[in-house]
Amino acid sequence: MNLKPRYVALLMALAVLLGAAGSYIGIEYFAGGVQEESQSDQYADKNAENFGSLSEEEQKEFLKDMSGNADLKKVEQAYNVIQENYVEEVDKKNLVEGAIQGMLDTLEDPYSVYMDKETMEQFNQSIESTFQGIGAEVSMVNDKVTIVAPIKGSPAEKAGLKPNDQILKVDGESVEGLDLYEAVLEIRGEKGTEVTLEIDRPGVSDPLNINITRDDIPLETVYTDTKTIDGKKAGIIEITSFSEKTSDEFHEALKKLEDDGMEGLVIDVRGNPGGLFTDVQEILKEFIPDDQPIVQVEDRSGEKSRYFSETKEKKPYPITVLMDEGSASASEILAATMQEAGGYDLVGTKSFGKGTVQQAIPMGDGSTIKLTLYKWLTPEGNWIHEKGIQPTVKVKQPSYFYTNPVDIEDPFKYNDNHEKVKNIQQLLKGLGHDPGRTDGYYSKETEAAVEAFQKEADIPVTGEVDEETGGKLEEAIITEVRKEENDRQMQKAVEVLFQ
Amino acid sequence: MNLKPRYVALLMALAVLLGAAGSYIGIEYFAGGVQEESQSDQYADKNAENFGSLSEEEQKEFLKDMSGNADLKKVEQAYNVIQENYVEEVDKKNLVEGAIQGMLDTLEDPYSVYMDKETMEQFNQSIESTFQGIGAEVSMVNDKVTIVAPIKGSPAEKAGLKPNDQILKVDGESVEGLDLYEAVLEIRGEKGTEVTLEIDRPGVSDPLNINITRDDIPLETVYTDTKTIDGKKAGIIEITSFSEKTSDEFHEALKKLEDDGMEGLVIDVRGNPGGLFTDVQEILKEFIPDDQPIVQVEDRSGEKSRYFSETKEKKPYPITVLMDEGSASASEILAATMQEAGGYDLVGTKSFGKGTVQQAIPMGDGSTIKLTLYKWLTPEGNWIHEKGIQPTVKVKQPSYFYTNPVDIEDPFKYNDNHEKVKNIQQLLKGLGHDPGRTDGYYSKETEAAVEAFQKEADIPVTGEVDEETGGKLEEAIITEVRKEENDRQMQKAVEVLFQ
Repeated sequence: MNLKPRYVALLMALAVLLGAAGSYIGIEYFAGGVQEESQSDQYADKNAENFGSLSEEEQKEFLKDMSGNADLKKVEQAYNVIQENYVEEVDKKNLVEGAIQGMLDTLEDPYSVYMDKETMEQFNQSIESTFQGIGAEVSMVNDKVTIVAPIKGSPAEKAGLKPNDQILKVDGESVEGLDLYEAVLEIRGEKGTEVTLEIDRPGVSDPLNINITRDDIPLETVYTDTKTIDGKKAGIIEITSFSEKTSDEFHEALKKLEDDGMEGLVIDVRGNPGGLFTDVQEILKEFIPDDQPIVQVEDRSGEKSRYFSETKEKKPYPITVLMDEGSASASEILAATMQEAGGYDLVGTKSFGKGTVQQAIPMGDGSTIKLTLYKWLTPEGNWIHEKGIQPTVKVKQPSYFYTNPVDIEDPFKYNDNHEKVKNIQQLLKGLGHDPGRTDGYYSKETEAAVEAFQKEADIPVTGEVDEETGGKLEEAIITEVRKEENDRQMQKAVEVLFQ
Repeated sequence: MNLKPRYVALLMALAVLLGAAGSYIGIEYFAGGVQEESQSDQYADKNAENFGSLSEEEQKEFLKDMSGNADLKKVEQAYNVIQENYVEEVDKKNLVEGAIQGMLDTLEDPYSVYMDKETMEQFNQSIESTFQGIGAEVSMVNDKVTIVAPIKGSPAEKAGLKPNDQILKVDGESVEGLDLYEAVLEIRGEKGTEVTLEIDRPGVSDPLNINITRDDIPLETVYTDTKTIDGKKAGIIEITSFSEKTSDEFHEALKKLEDDGMEGLVIDVRGNPGGLFTDVQEILKEFIPDDQPIVQVEDRSGEKSRYFSETKEKKPYPITVLMDEGSASASEILAATMQEAGGYDLVGTKSFGKGTVQQAIPMGDGSTIKLTLYKWLTPEGNWIHEKGIQPTVKVKQPSYFYTNPVDIEDPFKYNDNHEKVKNIQQLLKGLGHDPGRTDGYYSKETEAAVEAFQKEADIPVTGEVDEETGGKLEEAIITEVRKEENDRQMQKAVEVLFQ
């Protein structure tokens, strides 16, 4: 590892922050690349300041270098044309950053991004303290700020944000044209303050407005639990992201469960957007013997590096991995390797599908390019990018896990017909009342189901859904979602352990 | 006008092509800017090739210029980092073009765009011949290829493309990530060949597939007609875009109508996306006396140039201008000036709202930057950009002018509930059958309306909308749309003339 200490510190700090700050899915990889970058950094300084002191030979060499980048002359020409002629005054710094972002855009890789100095500084400032915000991992998908996953227990999760929600506005201001980091800075804010997000949700035609009260976002990434089924004791470790301390916390949690005599283990990476590449390796070393690679990394030239553990034997107890559509990147390394090299079952739904490794490359002026340097491949050499990993035991949550927050202006009633009625019908269904149809047409059956719910909830029986009824419906569903027995995926994962 | 002849030729040719090729809304402006550009062009060549022959003084001067662009060193650094480290081989040319596009993107001006050499060459090649394609003016709006207006009589219009339609796929291939010109090249093709566009239409949740057979796109831009109302003879001149020959054709058409004793004139610029700035000025000189400006142009520093005619008197007959949401740029200059400086009525709906002037700036290697150089202001100094111009007499077409092509897989029937039913209900309504509701719920009333239509159309009376019924509905609506008496806007425009 050839990294200079200051870069390591920066990367580590960044990685933690980016993992927790709800702005980054990806894994950091600490090798290669940076060394070259720091040379190019020095090289730039030399040209800008010291040309006069060069010998004639060196000057010629410099010019040769320049003509090697003769293509960039065209960029300079365009820069001059725009800057001198555009109808409005042009901010030169914006042009430069636009040029860099424009180059990154040609890669068609949403994980290769530019972060300007101000964004980086603000990120750095919040490293020391507990992070405050709404707690959602976001990514840029088709130029939209898109929720990858809300962090467990965060305000974002409580408010009902869902993977693939697209954020249109923050407090009434459009985020169009902002880059990911600018948008994140709009969304973040001090604990206790409120932010309103306008959300475009796939399958819902009208935008939703969701109010979220910001809070401290916990930096713990490992949660432990136990369940007993047919007299057998299962340990459960949930990993919410892979950050600086995750593997240490994981080792500790695992040891405690083993000491307590656990007979099977569920590793839950549902909604885990990824994090440090080194971290997931450390965790996998506990489980995967040294006869198979933990993971492979492939560079541009197709050359593969394989990573191995020093473990001699598999654990004496059965293991399952729980995953869903929010499990990305490092979570997918964990899932794929546990399955291919460990032979363990994967329970849940298909994972997100991110098969690349990024490196944060400082530009020397405080800004950073995060660039995709490698593909990671499964132990058997598969690349799961944009495909995801299929579970070996497919289980979806009950459909009411996927309903939307209720949003009512005028009461909904018989013969109404729109998307929001559809959502109400799904909620009613989730609560055991049959609305007759779930396509948004408020039929007589839907009316009867609403009446039955209103009777049960002890509110006026009107057959219409007003704000009160909507609120009660939402409350009832949240109660259901939080009930342990309704987590079908977890139940299945434990069940599979002891089959 | 300081332009070198070769630039004029290129610009003129380009303007015609861009006006007609369905790829550009905007007006070209032949003054300023280019002179500076051509210097910067030469300047770039000098640096790349002749540095060795410079004197020491000149070399120092060169370096000073370089450090003036020290910011661009960062672009170079990023270029090197990306090019050397990205996980895939990187095309250097793509990076350079990405950088230029990225700089243009920071302007947040959809009319400032980069066209690469290949795109330009293909455009140039098709200048000589009749243009072949689908005939739709498109623009990039929120990163989507968006229809501004189909050209009159073109396959695009016949197939039912509408302003604000977003093109998602061309022949099954996504256009995401393509720039406007790349997308246009996918859509264009030889006469007689077929292309399938997948369209996202505002207010329609499922994408529509529209098949279009490419054809020769007519380059005529001026069409003449006459109408007699209460014994009075109105001349009608429709301008479909402002290209090289438009003003000559207009003068000729106007003279003929005047010689024939017309008593009033309607100028129809509905769906006209704009074109040459000089052209609309030539047309306005016919009508606007020399005591008021035809148009004003404002540069970056706020300095205004006013353009005047040499006309002494207004025409002796009344005039109205017909416009709609597809009237953009040069069409809006015409409308605004006829209203403000001429006092003539504007009939129709609010115009598009494009108040800027672009210049095509050749980069020396065959590629071009089209850059916004000026705002144009109305005679009274108003800037209508992103606002549009309000009609003085507001008239919308009947609502069935705004229906969508019918797209049926399984027949629609009683109790169905979706967007496509909504469209069928609007078609039925347009044909005088009352479907009871138009929200997409296939009610008993809708069924009765379908039966009535089927009886009328002499097809099996099933009360369901299958492919045959859908086809007949569409046919019937197209017949209605083409009937002269249903063009409410035109009727109003003629009526207003003689009030």
